[in-house]
This record gives sequence, structure tokens and C-alpha cells, in this order.
Amino acid sequence: MVSIDLNSDLGESFGAWTMGDDPSMLKIVTSANIACGFHAGDPAGILAVLKEAAARGVAIGAHVGYRDLVGFGRRVMEPSSAELIGDVIYQIGALQGLATAAGTRISYVKPHGALYNTIAKDHRQGADVIAAIKAVDPQLTLLVLAGAPIVEQARKSGLRVVCEAFADRAYNPDGSLVNRRHPGAVLHDPAVIAQRMLRWVSEGLIDAIDGSLVRVEASSICVHGDNPAAVETAQVLRDVFVSSNVQLRSFTQCAEVANDA
Amino acid sequence: MVSIDLNSDLGESFGAWTMGDDPSMLKIVTSANIACGFHAGDPAGILAVLKEAAARGVAIGAHVGYRDLVGFGRRVMEPSSAELIGDVIYQIGALQGLATAAGTRISYVKPHGALYNTIAKDHRQGADVIAAIKAVDPQLTLLVLAGAPIVEQARKSGLRVVCEAFADRAYNPDGSLVNRRHPGAVLHDPAVIAQRMLRWVSEGLIDAIDGSLVRVEASSICVHGDNPAAVETAQVLRDVFVSSNVQLRSFTQCAEVANDA
Amino acid sequence: MVSIDLNSDLGESFGAWTMGDDPSMLKIVTSANIACGFHAGDPAGILAVLKEAAARGVAIGAHVGYRDLVGFGRRVMEPSSAELIGDVIYQIGALQGLATAAGTRISYVKPHGALYNTIAKDHRQGADVIAAIKAVDPQLTLLVLAGAPIVEQARKSGLRVVCEAFADRAYNPDGSLVNRRHPGAVLHDPAVIAQRMLRWVSEGLIDAIDGSLVRVEASSICVHGDNPAAVETAQVLRDVFVSSNVQLRSFTQCAEVANDA
Amino acid sequence: MVSIDLNSDLGESFGAWTMGDDPSMLKIVTSANIACGFHAGDPAGILAVLKEAAARGVAIGAHVGYRDLVGFGRRVMEPSSAELIGDVIYQIGALQGLATAAGTRISYVKPHGALYNTIAKDHRQGADVIAAIKAVDPQLTLLVLAGAPIVEQARKSGLRVVCEAFADRAYNPDGSLVNRRHPGAVLHDPAVIAQRMLRWVSEGLIDAIDGSLVRVEASSICVHGDNPAAVETAQVLRDVFVSSNVQLRSFTQCAEVANDA
Repeated sequence: MVSIDLNSDLGESFGAWTMGDDPSMLKIVTSANIACGFHAGDPAGILAVLKEAAARGVAIGAHVGYRDLVGFGRRVMEPSSAELIGDVIYQIGALQGLATAAGTRISYVKPHGALYNTIAKDHRQGADVIAAIKAVDPQLTLLVLAGAPIVEQARKSGLRVVCEAFADRAYNPDGSLVNRRHPGAVLHDPAVIAQRMLRWVSEGLIDAIDGSLVRVEASSICVHGDNPAAVETAQVLRDVFVSSNVQLRSFTQCAEVANDA
Repeated sequence: MVSIDLNSDLGESFGAWTMGDDPSMLKIVTSANIACGFHAGDPAGILAVLKEAAARGVAIGAHVGYRDLVGFGRRVMEPSSAELIGDVIYQIGALQGLATAAGTRISYVKPHGALYNTIAKDHRQGADVIAAIKAVDPQLTLLVLAGAPIVEQARKSGLRVVCEAFADRAYNPDGSLVNRRHPGAVLHDPAVIAQRMLRWVSEGLIDAIDGSLVRVEASSICVHGDNPAAVETAQVLRDVFVSSNVQLRSFTQCAEVANDA
Repeated sequence: MVSIDLNSDLGESFGAWTMGDDPSMLKIVTSANIACGFHAGDPAGILAVLKEAAARGVAIGAHVGYRDLVGFGRRVMEPSSAELIGDVIYQIGALQGLATAAGTRISYVKPHGALYNTIAKDHRQGADVIAAIKAVDPQLTLLVLAGAPIVEQARKSGLRVVCEAFADRAYNPDGSLVNRRHPGAVLHDPAVIAQRMLRWVSEGLIDAIDGSLVRVEASSICVHGDNPAAVETAQVLRDVFVSSNVQLRSFTQCAEVANDA
Repeated sequence: MVSIDLNSDLGESFGAWTMGDDPSMLKIVTSANIACGFHAGDPAGILAVLKEAAARGVAIGAHVGYRDLVGFGRRVMEPSSAELIGDVIYQIGALQGLATAAGTRISYVKPHGALYNTIAKDHRQGADVIAAIKAVDPQLTLLVLAGAPIVEQARKSGLRVVCEAFADRAYNPDGSLVNRRHPGAVLHDPAVIAQRMLRWVSEGLIDAIDGSLVRVEASSICVHGDNPAAVETAQVLRDVFVSSNVQLRSFTQCAEVANDA
């Protein structure tokens, strides 16, 4: 029986501002990337989400980001290595503390937003994130973009790496994501999304934007929950998997990781 | 041979702004209360201090504060219990992460500034801090003001508590500190301070502001290092202790805590 | 023909987080209390709201708050006079700058949240807010709680003061608001709210919670727009006023202020 | 009689953290670039500096920066145009408000740190800063790096521009600054610095690092005051100018700007 992990960004509210529908998403996903306070997330809100995730047996990842609240961690930044290493350790530690209080623990790290995109290719910042993770807990897995240079960089460093595919994004023939500015870059039809992902989970192949088939090696699918339509899409995806006998479980529970190299 | 602990606030720089002389103070104290980022301290700077403290064998405490950078945690605040518990866990966790990266670990928690003063007497906020510590690591010791209601409150909760005396503060006959607004509340003469503390370490008694003697039960002395005169005073105090055969060691290393009840 | 002002809190989004439905509320109100960045509001978002308010001829007020983003300015704080005066001037100045860029200007100041409640009674913080307003622009009007001590304090200082009633709050027989923790403190039925306010606009009287009638002297009504039901209530209130020949216009346009002493 | 302006960065303290020696520098410079709260400066501290600058007749510039307190505005950022325009207007407005309260007014804008360096060459961010200044007050002068593309860009936009030379920096033969990472990039000898600047003020020429002479067209000299040696250097420079009959006055007071094109 094939299995796959569904991950989503949670804990992104901040004080009086809410974002996303965490309770609904925690019924859908198997892994929760939880904000750590630098781009989103306040301690009390993070703790509440951690408790709910723990109650549902959802795996916890530290969703570390640049220190940029007003920019939601989506703006490119150039912290020094000392700054970036410190910031990543600090965020992981803070989430570990809250996770302990919630009776659970962190099993992976997924960088957020601009940091996610930057380390995919930027060797220096990638090395800083890797060094930070190894310094605070070398057992943590790094969850990154399938096919990006960071995958090999992290593996060579000795860190466990898991890759993710994006449910609602179009792919180029080389396995990279179609730039968001191009038409057709983001998919919206839940049925289409579910069928693409079902085929991918079974065969490892995704229809690229030019009609060719591209092999994407990953063990997790990133789904979004920041608006009601996104939650609905994630639910449809889950339902299709369940009815097709695809087992949903965290990649942290897999001895063998399905489509990962 | 009598022993005592000297503690001081460190890691209070923030980005381009420096505060205090951490390297000098790490040669003097046996316990370092290290800022956790909410009232002071940036991750890279905290990590650097932690590495130096670890190299010197200085015990590490989490100096948790209100979330108020511009006010340096010195302004009274009224966070809800959920907020305060979350904020304290978050800060302890963040420092634990950085301490792990520095090859050391946190052994105690000392609230900072307005939070320190508030929990001395405020039962609700005191309970929140206690709950936070127990949730993240019940083995941590709480370092608080000698003679304050929080001492008994924390002990009843099952938390290990250690009390501190203040080297440069005048005492009332009832063992409380003379309010800073009163003349004579703060002592400046290093020789006077050292002799007061030496007597106290030997006999448990401090000269109160009215000339009477007051018993202060504590296992640690708080010294300051935020200006050159303060560092000098701390050094004189250490020197007097060393030359008087008072052993300087962290309270975390003592099976029996000297003057604590 | 009787006239009244409707005011509401706007510009409270922050970066990626949205709050309220500013475009809808700008069609309903005659005065917009616009966040200034300390408790809510980022510059780009504030500027966009200011432009829309200017296009609709809505009067602009500076909604100044405590410097507490995560607490949304709702937590009691004790800034020093220098801090509070500086913070209020800074926020008014920042909004003035953005208003100038939007082709409009600020005509009043309404403190937000905990600052609003504190200065209603706290003479020292009230004096600080008054001093700040007078220092930056003594022509600005201060919008405060009807019947509170701050009204007289501000008038004595020479500042123009306008009072507000709350559309959805129950009143005590002495004209104060029923505490939110008491049952019935907040009204939800749009029709009831509209009829209460219509009577008040005509006669100056509101039904108190004990069934008596209480005179409330005010020139503006505070309405909320932070959720769809609140927007709906505000719209109903506006519709009832329009169909009852109550003119809606900013208090800043009135030579004589309707119910103000 | 030749005249020149000396400018320096002031108001860079933040809460409990102090930076620089503002009182000393206000006796030396004729223009004060005052932090606006985004990279440094808290409102109460800024207000105090403004009052002192006003008392001394020193011209006031808004030292606007990226929103990055922990990075002191020294880290490259990529805000969107809407964000950057909003941030610059907000900071200028805030400082205008505080300047009004201090009985003075802003006469120019000097971007800080990474923003200063970025707009020197980056046309898009330069256009955003120019648009922001024109939106809030088109009478403000923009103070920028001599010889940089921003000079022409701002002039074409209709904004008044003034250029500055750096007292303690080595120049390349093309008039650009020698990169800080190169040996000899920063000058330390007060006498050498003063003689270089004296010659430049008289002849418009500076000795370049290769021994050639380079013409630098500027009307202001940037001096630093962030440490005692820097203050001393600035004082020596001022003294040499005074004893050489070079008049020190703000560029805002000059109808004809000395060395500007």
C-alpha cells in the first residue's frame, strides 16, 4: 500500500490577527509546519495549535523564517551567517519548548517563504540553516523543495532530507515550479489537483505545463489552508487519497520514504 | 568552607547596541542570567555569550522578561495567563536551543525587571511563570527575591527555588529592599558593599538602613555589570570573597544551599 | 434637521494579516479612526485606507495606541510621561505624513483600546495624551468616552473635545458603560441598536440596563466593523438614520455640536 | 568666504540602549540626520535630540531606513514599492510631528545604511524614495552620495538634491568610495582627515587612493560620532575649518551650494 504525507503551514495567526483555519487543516494533514514567531505566530497561539496537533497525532515541523513580521517572511533578506544561524536555532528552540509543554516534539524543519526559496539555491544561506539544525538537534529532518540544490547539499552534510511536491502548482519539464507570474502557474480545480497528485503518488510522474511527464521525487505534498477554497481543495485531495487506498501518514513514520531518491 | 553564588544579567546587547561588559563579568560571576530576546538579546549575540559562559563553566539561567524591547522589560504589563505562560515557555525554549548549540544547558530561570518585581507579590502572574517553567522543564530552579511571597508559592508548587540578596541595595528591617526613590537605597562604595556581603555570607545578617541587623535567607548575590563602576564593584566583591576563603560556586552545584530555608 | 457622526476603527490590518472590511465601512461612517502602526496598521495599508477615505470625504482621526502589536494595544501599560508623549506625537505625525500623501489631513485623535480606557480616568496619562496633541497640532479634536473625567480635563486644557456613545453597548443609569463581563453588556440585534440610537439622537436619552433613561452627551456614535455581522449592524443603523432624516456628517463639520455640553 | 556643512547621524539610541554622543556632536555639526524609529530611535529619545538640535540651530534631516531594528538598517532588503513608499512617508511624518513638538522642522532627508547604498544605484528603490518625499513634502532636499546615479535621478524628478563627501573614507580615482574591505578604505588620523577636507573645501579635489586627484562635487561632509575617537576627529575637523576661515553652516541655508553641480 502506497503512503504519502500531507503538510501545511499552521500557527500563522498573530495576536488579534487570525490566518487560516488551523482546526480544519489539522483534520486533513499529517504534518504541520508551525510558525515560530519570526514571520508569524505568537507563543500562546502556537502553543494552542501544538496541543491540538498533538491530540491528533500530526507530526510537528518548525516553520522557521526571516525576522520580518510585517513582510510575513516573504521578502528576500541577507542576514549574516551568525545572524541566520542564531535566528534558526532560536526559533527551533522556542518551538521545542512550546512542543514540550504541549506534550509533543518537533520532528522536522521546513524553512518558510523567502528563506525557503533562498536556501533552495543559495549555498551560503543553505549551509547556515543546515548548521543551525545540526547544532540544535541533528536528528531533525529538513523538508525542502524537490529537485533543488539544497537537497544534495543537506544530504552531504549528513542531515536527513525529505522533499515535497506542491499540489496546486504547475511544473516545468525539468521538474522546477512554473514561476507564479506565468499564466497557469497555480492550479485551482480540486478535482484536477487530486488526479494529478494521485497519479504522482502511484507513478512518481506529474504532467508538466508543456504536456510532457516529469518525474518528481518527494515524500510529502504541500497543501494550503489560508482560505476556505484552499481548505476545500486539501479536503478533496485527502478524500481522493483515502478512497484510492493511499495511506496518509507522516514521512517521519516511514522507514522507507516513497518517492525520495 | 562557606560558598556563595554570584549572578549577573548578561546577553543584554541587541543588534548594533551593546550593553554591559559580558566578557569581564563572566570572569567574576558563577551564574549568568541571560536575556532571551523579549526585553533584550538577539540570537547571535546570545549564542556568543552562551559559548563564552560554557567555556568558563558559568551556570546559565534564562532571564525571561515581558515582551517590551523599547521598555527593556522594565514597564509593568498585564498579559493574560495564556500570553504570559506562552511567552515564558517560548523564551526558555529559545535559550535552551541556543544553549544546546553552545554545548551547555539552562539550569535556572530568573525573571527580569518588571516581571521579577511583579511575580514577587502578584499571585496570578507568579502562578503563570511557575506553570510555564514546570511545563517546559520541571527540573529548572526559580531564582527570586529573598523574602518575597513568590518563594513560598513556588515551593508549594514543587518547584525548586533559590533566593538572592542584592549586593548594592539597602535593606529595610523587615528584609525588604529600600525603595530606589529613597536616599541611600543604592550603595556605591565597593569596600562597604564587600564587607556587608562578607558578613552576610558568614552570619546570614545584613545591616538594615535603620542600623538594625536583618536576617536574609538567600543562596546567591545579584551583582551588576552594566557600567565600568559596577564591574569594578563586582570584582572587588569577588576578590574579598576569595581572600576570605568564601568559595564561589553556582547554587546549582550545591547539595545544601547555604542560607536558604 | 438633526445630524450625527458615525465613527469606526479602520486601517487595522498588518502586513499579510487583514482585519475588518474597510471598503464597506468607508461607505457607512463619516469619521475613520485610523490605526497608526503601534497597535495595528502598516504604512502601505494605512496609506491605501487614507486614499479611500479621502475619496469618500470621510473625516480622518489618528487612532493612537500603546506600543504593543501582539497585544493589539488592548493590554494596560504604564509608559512614563516622556514615553507616552513621544509615542503619541510620533503616531500622529506618521499619520499626518501619510494623510498628506493621500491628499487629506487629520482632524481628530481617538486613543485606542487600553489607552482609551486608561485616559478616561487616569489623570497622568490623560495629561500626557493632551500634551502630545497640543504639541503636534492644537487644532486637533480629542474624541473620548462620554461622561468620563478626561472630558473635563481636556476641555480645561483648552483642547476641543468631542464625546462618543457606543451603539452596541448597554449603559448603566449613571451613563457609564456596563462592564463587558456582565450579561447584556453587548447588544447584538441591529433593529434594537438602531432604535436606541435613533431615540438618543432625537432626545439625548438612552435606555439604561435597569430600564431607566439616561442622558448621554455626545456628538458621535462608535460602530464596529471587525466582522460581517458588525458591518451589517452599522449599515442598518445608517439606513435607519437616513430614512428618519438624521443627517450623517462628521463632527468636524459641525459649528454646533449636537448633544455635547 | 567658503562655507561647508557638516552632517552626522544622531538620535540612534533605542530605549535603554545608547549609541553615540549626541550632545557633543550637536556642538560640532550643522546638520543632524535623525533616526526615525525604523532602524533606530525611540520617540522620547528622538524628541529630546530634536529639542537640543533646535536650541543649537542645527538643521534637521530625516534619517529614514529599512524596517529592521535588529539589523540596524544595515541589511539589504527588497521591500515592494508600496511598502517602501509607505515606510519612508511614515518615518518622515513621524519625525515631522516630533520636530513640530520640538519647535523646529525637517529640511532634508538622508536615507540610512543599506537604503542609502541601495538607492545610490537601484533605480526602482530610488524612485520609491523620491516619490515618498515628494508625496509628503516636495520642499525637502535629498542628501545622497556624491557622484551616484541617484543624484541625476532625483534632479530629473524635480527634487532638490545635495551631495556629501565622507571625511574618513578613501576615494577611488573615479570618485567612488574605496570598498570598506580594502586596506586603507577608512582613514583614522584626524590631522590627515582635516587636511584632506580642507583642501577639498578650497579646491574641490580629494587625494584618491592611487595618488591622483579626484574632483568630488558635494556641499556637505559626513562625519561620525558613534565612538569617542570619531567625536574627536569631528572636533578636529571643525576646529581646522574654523581656524582656516571656512564657514560652517547648513546647506539648507545656502542659496548657492558650494561644490554642487
